[in-house]
Amino acid sequence: MSVLARIVGHPLTERVILVLVVVNAITLGLETSPSIMARYGGPLHLLDQAILAVFVVEIVARLAVRRLSFFRDPWSVFDFAIVAISLLPATGPLQVLRALRVLRVFRLITLAPSLKRVVGALVGALPGMGSIVVLLMLVLYVFAVMATHLYGADMPEKFGTLGISLFTLFQLVTLDGWSGEIVKPAMETHPYAWIFFITFILVSSFTVFNLFIGVVVNAMQAEHDLEIAERTGRPPVSMDDLMQELKQLRAEVAELKGRGGA
Amino acid sequence: MSVLARIVGHPLTERVILVLVVVNAITLGLETSPSIMARYGGPLHLLDQAILAVFVVEIVARLAVRRLSFFRDPWSVFDFAIVAISLLPATGPLQVLRALRVLRVFRLITLAPSLKRVVGALVGALPGMGSIVVLLMLVLYVFAVMATHLYGADMPEKFGTLGISLFTLFQLVTLDGWSGEIVKPAMETHPYAWIFFITFILVSSFTVFNLFIGVVVNAMQAEHDLEIAERTGRPPVSMDDLMQELKQLRAEVAELKGRGGA
Amino acid sequence: MSVLARIVGHPLTERVILVLVVVNAITLGLETSPSIMARYGGPLHLLDQAILAVFVVEIVARLAVRRLSFFRDPWSVFDFAIVAISLLPATGPLQVLRALRVLRVFRLITLAPSLKRVVGALVGALPGMGSIVVLLMLVLYVFAVMATHLYGADMPEKFGTLGISLFTLFQLVTLDGWSGEIVKPAMETHPYAWIFFITFILVSSFTVFNLFIGVVVNAMQAEHDLEIAERTGRPPVSMDDLMQELKQLRAEVAELKGRGGA
Amino acid sequence: MSVLARIVGHPLTERVILVLVVVNAITLGLETSPSIMARYGGPLHLLDQAILAVFVVEIVARLAVRRLSFFRDPWSVFDFAIVAISLLPATGPLQVLRALRVLRVFRLITLAPSLKRVVGALVGALPGMGSIVVLLMLVLYVFAVMATHLYGADMPEKFGTLGISLFTLFQLVTLDGWSGEIVKPAMETHPYAWIFFITFILVSSFTVFNLFIGVVVNAMQAEHDLEIAERTGRPPVSMDDLMQELKQLRAEVAELKGRGGA
Repeated sequence: MSVLARIVGHPLTERVILVLVVVNAITLGLETSPSIMARYGGPLHLLDQAILAVFVVEIVARLAVRRLSFFRDPWSVFDFAIVAISLLPATGPLQVLRALRVLRVFRLITLAPSLKRVVGALVGALPGMGSIVVLLMLVLYVFAVMATHLYGADMPEKFGTLGISLFTLFQLVTLDGWSGEIVKPAMETHPYAWIFFITFILVSSFTVFNLFIGVVVNAMQAEHDLEIAERTGRPPVSMDDLMQELKQLRAEVAELKGRGGA
Repeated sequence: MSVLARIVGHPLTERVILVLVVVNAITLGLETSPSIMARYGGPLHLLDQAILAVFVVEIVARLAVRRLSFFRDPWSVFDFAIVAISLLPATGPLQVLRALRVLRVFRLITLAPSLKRVVGALVGALPGMGSIVVLLMLVLYVFAVMATHLYGADMPEKFGTLGISLFTLFQLVTLDGWSGEIVKPAMETHPYAWIFFITFILVSSFTVFNLFIGVVVNAMQAEHDLEIAERTGRPPVSMDDLMQELKQLRAEVAELKGRGGA
Repeated sequence: MSVLARIVGHPLTERVILVLVVVNAITLGLETSPSIMARYGGPLHLLDQAILAVFVVEIVARLAVRRLSFFRDPWSVFDFAIVAISLLPATGPLQVLRALRVLRVFRLITLAPSLKRVVGALVGALPGMGSIVVLLMLVLYVFAVMATHLYGADMPEKFGTLGISLFTLFQLVTLDGWSGEIVKPAMETHPYAWIFFITFILVSSFTVFNLFIGVVVNAMQAEHDLEIAERTGRPPVSMDDLMQELKQLRAEVAELKGRGGA
Repeated sequence: MSVLARIVGHPLTERVILVLVVVNAITLGLETSPSIMARYGGPLHLLDQAILAVFVVEIVARLAVRRLSFFRDPWSVFDFAIVAISLLPATGPLQVLRALRVLRVFRLITLAPSLKRVVGALVGALPGMGSIVVLLMLVLYVFAVMATHLYGADMPEKFGTLGISLFTLFQLVTLDGWSGEIVKPAMETHPYAWIFFITFILVSSFTVFNLFIGVVVNAMQAEHDLEIAERTGRPPVSMDDLMQELKQLRAEVAELKGRGGA
């Protein structure tokens, strides 16, 4: 088994997989063109299947080597899920799964360390912003229920059900056509609708803005600290660390002074 | 009375209320669907009333325990107002209050400490930005008066009254359809209208952007300081604190040196 | 003359002017309503003239007291210009100046120290961003000339002259309806127009974003430094200041050590 | 040859070129007006050609002086490319190159040191954000392939080919008319299309936002460090530098204490 482990972990294997992902990205792009498919559909499909076979073999090998610990690494689970989607039958109602095969291209993220680091930093910054995400969902839900009650009867295509209201309010969050498409039509039957909608716009865009800035700043800070720790080989220094060091130094000087005076 | 105080302050009470708020959030959502209301309208309404009764009892109990100091805590006032709205008669012209019953779901904010902290930080950052809010309102007001004078006669549906002008200028602030819906029609009768509108867009979006960034950065800074203070048990350290500490240390070393020379 | 100086500088005078500005803001708002003007037009106009008279007297008094140094303070020039606009004849082709009378309300900025500080910080941050403003105008100009050459003949209402092209490109900067209103119609006659427009969108929105963030961050930094300096009574401390202090301390300790070894 | 080098490097030469670029910027702007061209087309064209001739001579002179090292400076290559474009024949299918002549105005950037610094900082910040640019292109590509498969047959004008899908998705990134123009029409034939599009909007706008903030913050940090280094004549100081200095100082004090105790 150690031979298999050595093959799986070999840099050459990784490079081969990387090349195959890139080739596959191109073939999957070419497959969107009907004229190319008419001429080269057969060979492209064959190449596609061959690359998928290699991916399956690689994942199975990694599974055999690392066993259960394989599923503890989120990136391995990500690779596994992406390959598994391609193996599902894509016929009848599941035909939509055919389109998901292109997700394989995202294996590039697990193969390029710099991409892995960026995605890791972004995803890692999300939990810290959990409260704001919950807050935003709460605001959306409460306003959607209200909008359905208030405007559902008069504007069924915008606020007919809770789901449609949520979609319309998401459109308001992005500020896309909010005035002409949503608020002005609502004001024709409900002259004071602007109070509801402008309140929602102010509250939600403020929360969203906060969320985005927060995640970005946290992710950048984390990456910055990591980079410094890598470069200097020391953990990042805070103002508080400096103050503690300074206080201890002062205590030592004071001791020295006391002794000198003795 | 101390028994009541113990019941109100008990963690179990809080957890029960939390569960009821979540259940109520779901039932209020289900009530937006006419088909569900047709079938389960009766029991849903009953459950709603029962939960409201519990909320009323809880608020009254808290009022009885804390008396006037209840109204000194803004979060208690928030809870009180939300429950009070649900008790108002929602008939005739006040039917809109029915829709406001869903505001009860916001009680989640007072019950989840992390949400409370985030909302507190955001609201707490606002007063510091008060000057910019006043500035923005001043800019909106002045430009709305000007727009009503300049374009009110030719575009009554956009600038007919001061109120309509304020709404149209708010649309300009969000940049939604500003060119096609507002500025180009205005330029048909007033060829130089672009000077007015582009000035307004530049000034207002600049001010708004400033306001948002300012509130977010202040709120994040406050939360960051709080987190550090919680983790280290010490107040956050500023550059100036470090400098003062350093200067005192230097004075002590100088003293030591003077004494050593003696 | 010193009596006049004392009257002009008296806090009561300032408060009276502040009240008059607020009253004037309200009357100018009321004057936008034709129904109110029909009933109370006479008294409102009289009040307006009376307030303007007080403003003129105040400005003249300040001019008499401070003479030429009056024009060295930009805020005084601002007040002067605003009052001067109201005195210009607003008939015939200059009727637009009537609408500019409401600019008087901006005198609130000079009267409220907190507003003055915010506006000062924003305006003060602009020169530091001068290079980016010039860069943005350069990009707009170059792309406007190109667009006029490339699309002027086929889309005269969007790119017919240099001025119209500048307006259309400003619309592209704000991303308002760029696809449906501008780029797709252009692509009907020029299939590769997307290269031009997407390049412009990327370059310009990137530059604008930079400009905004830059000004805001600079203004906030300046205000923050000012606040610290006010609170501690000391200039803000930089990392470099700390390092210099630390290095001098180390030199003193080294000297102490040398002497102790002697 | 050293005479040529002295002429090329002379500040007067640079100033003459700067004036010519500004004059050329104006003439190129005037050339967009058919009425001005009808009257002054001849002299304008002549002036244009004369200025171009000066530019060519200047570039050739700089090439002769600096030879191959000319091509090592990216700004020189930039100047060279801009002048070269103007010399290409602009007839037949290459008529579009005529419009590119106005790019000459960008020579202002190489001539104004402050503009050069800003553009340098912005471009210099890009490589550090390379991973996010790659990630964004990956996300765009994968979603474009999926969209072409899923919606290409029913909405050929929005998702007919990979290229059209990329354009439509770029429109989604900018949030311009995403609801009314793209997502709602797609939902008529694919009721669950909102899952695809809202996922894309969240992922892509989040990544783009990150990219922009990242580049700006990096560029501002770099410029800030540069400015400090210029002002103090010392490299910028980090927290870690302070800590190292402090630790060495403490070691010295400890040594002093040990010696004093001996």
